[in-house]
Amino acid sequence: MLSKAQIKYIQSLQHKKNRQKSSQYIAEGDKIVQELLQAGMPVKAVYATSAWLLQHSQLLDRLPADAVKEVDQAALKQLSALTTPNNAMALLDMPPAQGGLPQEGTVVLALEAIQDPGNMGTLIRIADWFGIRQIIVSPDCVDVYNPKTIQATMGSIARVQVKEMDIRTLLEESKLPSYAATLHGVDITSFTTLREGIILIGNEGRGLSEETIAHATHRITIPRLGGAESLNAAVAAGIICGRLLI
Amino acid sequence: MLSKAQIKYIQSLQHKKNRQKSSQYIAEGDKIVQELLQAGMPVKAVYATSAWLLQHSQLLDRLPADAVKEVDQAALKQLSALTTPNNAMALLDMPPAQGGLPQEGTVVLALEAIQDPGNMGTLIRIADWFGIRQIIVSPDCVDVYNPKTIQATMGSIARVQVKEMDIRTLLEESKLPSYAATLHGVDITSFTTLREGIILIGNEGRGLSEETIAHATHRITIPRLGGAESLNAAVAAGIICGRLLI
Repeated sequence: MLSKAQIKYIQSLQHKKNRQKSSQYIAEGDKIVQELLQAGMPVKAVYATSAWLLQHSQLLDRLPADAVKEVDQAALKQLSALTTPNNAMALLDMPPAQGGLPQEGTVVLALEAIQDPGNMGTLIRIADWFGIRQIIVSPDCVDVYNPKTIQATMGSIARVQVKEMDIRTLLEESKLPSYAATLHGVDITSFTTLREGIILIGNEGRGLSEETIAHATHRITIPRLGGAESLNAAVAAGIICGRLLI
Repeated sequence: MLSKAQIKYIQSLQHKKNRQKSSQYIAEGDKIVQELLQAGMPVKAVYATSAWLLQHSQLLDRLPADAVKEVDQAALKQLSALTTPNNAMALLDMPPAQGGLPQEGTVVLALEAIQDPGNMGTLIRIADWFGIRQIIVSPDCVDVYNPKTIQATMGSIARVQVKEMDIRTLLEESKLPSYAATLHGVDITSFTTLREGIILIGNEGRGLSEETIAHATHRITIPRLGGAESLNAAVAAGIICGRLLI
């Protein structure tokens, strides 16, 4: 059983300002809670059905007993920020703010003004698939710790470091080459596999800002064979990684 | 002003069985309604704010006067199936069922058990970007005329033909080579550009069925460099198209 204060606290973490104040966030879903525990993330509490707790008792061994709370479906529904609640949730500490520019010899993904939490989570999952260990997000991106974003990462949040930084500062101060995804750049099929660089993806509706495009060392484009005017931002990032990184 | 019966009819099209009975569907959103009108799709009525109608009067010329209805934001909200209603909606006739197998010399996308309406719409948009003119959907896919799917196509539904067909029948009867996206196939980077074929994408959670994989002429895989267990189905389709079609 959870106290009223606990319920209220967990619900409060649906809002960014409360997450920032407490430096904690919530992850929802069977698979993602498992992955976060397996990855050794700073899980402070798990709320799950008795069946889930029994099935994953080994994963819960290293948590203090009072950090594991058995709750029923109705309680999970009450706690959930999602329309389809799951049978497990976790409360986590946010990692401390990461310092410094991307290192030489690495590929990073830099996101400008991504607004949709699902897209943000999908972008983190794509980075994880392609072995990108760091994502830079502009200050006007949707919060990475939004419950919908965390769910859409499918656990990849455990393996990808996310750092907030002004994109112009990044491009001015980093020595890495940068590749801005635009509609009027160099065909992505003309590149060989990238060993280092910053892949820049812009807002869902507007794309990258003129300023960012102007500061990038390369402008790149996915050739279009048909009629669609644009691609979803996460799909575009996937296609670009699928040409430049493998 | 809309009559109560008109409002009730439009709302009824949020449900698949009503769409199938009437062979009509609803498209929501400024940009998509414009695209459908421009593409000459069988738009039977447009419901939009006075500002929208004024701004797009040229597009509305060929519609009978009584097919253009001025409504306010409150009425659009009442009609909308989406959480964020738009300033324009259209009522359309579904195209007649398309006959026949994919033609030789073409590339088609075949989708098995795709469940999420947003993914389905994104897949149609990807097909349109890469010049794929036909999509085959298995009978257990989410309905293409779901309002969320139509919105996620961003207008591409006007340029891509969608045909429902059993995937096994397709693979047995078509002479085209087929490429099943799996986690244990041939690296997609080892293929040259495809001129014809069937690209097979499976369910979001389970991927393609064993039966479909067994009947495909090729099994293909996006090489994984990092930790993510899988990719979103639409992202995977985009990456595959980005390697095999351009």
